[in-house]
Amino acid sequence: MKKNIKLNMSRRIRRTPFTNKVEQCGVSDFTVVNHMLLPKGFKKSVEEDYWHLNEHVQIWDVSCQRQVQISGPDAQKLVQKMTPRSIKNMATGKCFYIPIIDENAGMINDPVLLKLDDDMFWISIADSDILLWAKGLALGSNFDVNIVEPDVYPLAVQGPKSEALMVSIFGEDIKKIKFFNFKIFDFLGTKQIIARSGYSRQDGFEIYFKGFEEHFNGVELGEKLWDIIWKAGQKFNISPGCPNLIDRIEAGLLSYGNDFTKENNPLECNLEKYCSECENHEFIGREALKKIKLEGIKQKMRGILFEGEPCLATGKPLSVYSEKNKKIGQIASGIYSPRLKKNIGLSMILKDYWDIGQKLNVETYDGKKRKGIITTLPFPK
Amino acid sequence: MKKNIKLNMSRRIRRTPFTNKVEQCGVSDFTVVNHMLLPKGFKKSVEEDYWHLNEHVQIWDVSCQRQVQISGPDAQKLVQKMTPRSIKNMATGKCFYIPIIDENAGMINDPVLLKLDDDMFWISIADSDILLWAKGLALGSNFDVNIVEPDVYPLAVQGPKSEALMVSIFGEDIKKIKFFNFKIFDFLGTKQIIARSGYSRQDGFEIYFKGFEEHFNGVELGEKLWDIIWKAGQKFNISPGCPNLIDRIEAGLLSYGNDFTKENNPLECNLEKYCSECENHEFIGREALKKIKLEGIKQKMRGILFEGEPCLATGKPLSVYSEKNKKIGQIASGIYSPRLKKNIGLSMILKDYWDIGQKLNVETYDGKKRKGIITTLPFPK
Repeated sequence: MKKNIKLNMSRRIRRTPFTNKVEQCGVSDFTVVNHMLLPKGFKKSVEEDYWHLNEHVQIWDVSCQRQVQISGPDAQKLVQKMTPRSIKNMATGKCFYIPIIDENAGMINDPVLLKLDDDMFWISIADSDILLWAKGLALGSNFDVNIVEPDVYPLAVQGPKSEALMVSIFGEDIKKIKFFNFKIFDFLGTKQIIARSGYSRQDGFEIYFKGFEEHFNGVELGEKLWDIIWKAGQKFNISPGCPNLIDRIEAGLLSYGNDFTKENNPLECNLEKYCSECENHEFIGREALKKIKLEGIKQKMRGILFEGEPCLATGKPLSVYSEKNKKIGQIASGIYSPRLKKNIGLSMILKDYWDIGQKLNVETYDGKKRKGIITTLPFPK
Repeated sequence: MKKNIKLNMSRRIRRTPFTNKVEQCGVSDFTVVNHMLLPKGFKKSVEEDYWHLNEHVQIWDVSCQRQVQISGPDAQKLVQKMTPRSIKNMATGKCFYIPIIDENAGMINDPVLLKLDDDMFWISIADSDILLWAKGLALGSNFDVNIVEPDVYPLAVQGPKSEALMVSIFGEDIKKIKFFNFKIFDFLGTKQIIARSGYSRQDGFEIYFKGFEEHFNGVELGEKLWDIIWKAGQKFNISPGCPNLIDRIEAGLLSYGNDFTKENNPLECNLEKYCSECENHEFIGREALKKIKLEGIKQKMRGILFEGEPCLATGKPLSVYSEKNKKIGQIASGIYSPRLKKNIGLSMILKDYWDIGQKLNVETYDGKKRKGIITTLPFPK
């Protein structure tokens, strides 16, 4: 495959309040998520970046995690209609990871839901226009809701030193935020939501930065936030970063569009626990999901360890074969783990081959096959 | 702004049946549209490419123009609900450019609609997940339809020699296809839809290539199609290409996400003629659009000619000011036209300043202002 293909920049691929800062930090790669730039690399190699993330603290522009804000009298009803996970007992201040499925029980997103109030939710989305899905459903169903994409741009602080850094800026109350909860903090006279969460295996926070008045003006407050974190981060050896492929594969964190698509159901994605309450509420895809449960799934997401020199899966997934040369899966997310000293990957694996310890072969881009084995998810620490 | 930023490749940014060919042709830039790669440059400069497109013929991988296939008893009813343009008298074999708007009359896409049969439509979309919008509406409204994204990957043949090239492959019947109509042709035993259309000011065709069985196998038929066009195209001086920024700005062809967004209504986008039948059918956004018509719009899409050395608008739009220094617009699509020997751009312009001939100033990235003027759309030939 070709290397060093440039990303053509245009307004359609939206900049964020932090893009200037990210450019000043020497970003080398971007990808596009939700019509917005997501940095994918700086000066460090992915491996150097992995060790840094495991030891220190990083600042990530994850503004592409767009929010779909659903408010109004029917907000809870609409959100509940969108997911098999029950939100009946969800408290304000909580974050819930929720599968969103279509009428065939196909995954159309796997966002984090934030409950801001009884009649106000944010859905912090992966890469698909859930804004249109939610609005379409609401309009068709005549729900009394208001649905918008607010000017909220998440900024993540990730790594073992993230708590100390965040305390130095926002105070001791940071320590009181439990995993997948959020609290509201003051920042230069504005109210900002800070959650303990993030797309890494490390401790970390996501600041749901709000304060952006118009797309290409009003960047100032965002840049101030970046600068304050950057300055306070110096004594914690802060570095600019982004979701690290090694870390997130080891963590078993799935990427929508890469590891699973609308062709996959939540049971295939190991999300059974969010589908256990199917019987108790109405939601899109309920009948399809019940049928799949009854019939059993044909493949399941698994971790794979495989041999040979360092390998990277890019635009084309790596095919996975049984020992008898039957195609049993494909690795869309794969890279070398310097800690495990093996290549690691995520793949849906066919039923007869998905047991832990199952031997298999991974075909690399040179057409050669390498020995591999199914392992647990997350990968062993 | 930073130059030469790489696009990080992953399965989420989908390849097409033609991506291997595009890479072999030396693609230098990609962008991402509908979660899929769109080539944005080859070995020629944009200017060389413009002259070539104006004189010869090009082959473009526009697979990212994904189809939303709506079929079933309520298909026509659902499609009609999605647009202010009446499709009552639309015949099979026709292509209609249709605004799709939300409940606020905000543009959420500007696709080309193809009527394949009375109960079967394709919506050939710009960059937003209309699949989710249509499915959400249909589920909420209990419409009896089936909505999928079929394995269809448009391949465009554009330029003044496109008819001669297409005739040499598909026969004289190609000449019978009128602008914005399609016919079905045989290709190696498969049926392929070919429309006379394309995102350029030149004559051209779009082959709605179907025949792709699985994402990373079955590319063969697509590559055969590419190869046959490429080989037959040699005597017409064929070149690999992509939508050309100079040509499409001169043509006044708008780009969703660049020149307009969901913050804009169709009247601002000069699409009045597709909104004239508002009274005669029900559609999402009808009340909002009526209100906007009544109150009048505050800005309108215009062409701008401006002075100075060649200039390119990239991720950050160029601000447009009145002679008295009031901000009156922003150019997201702007480039130097070697034919007009001026910079050209597209911008929404505030009401008091939108008359043809109005003088204005354009601020470039160096912070300097250049003299400009409002012109007609399309730009003068």
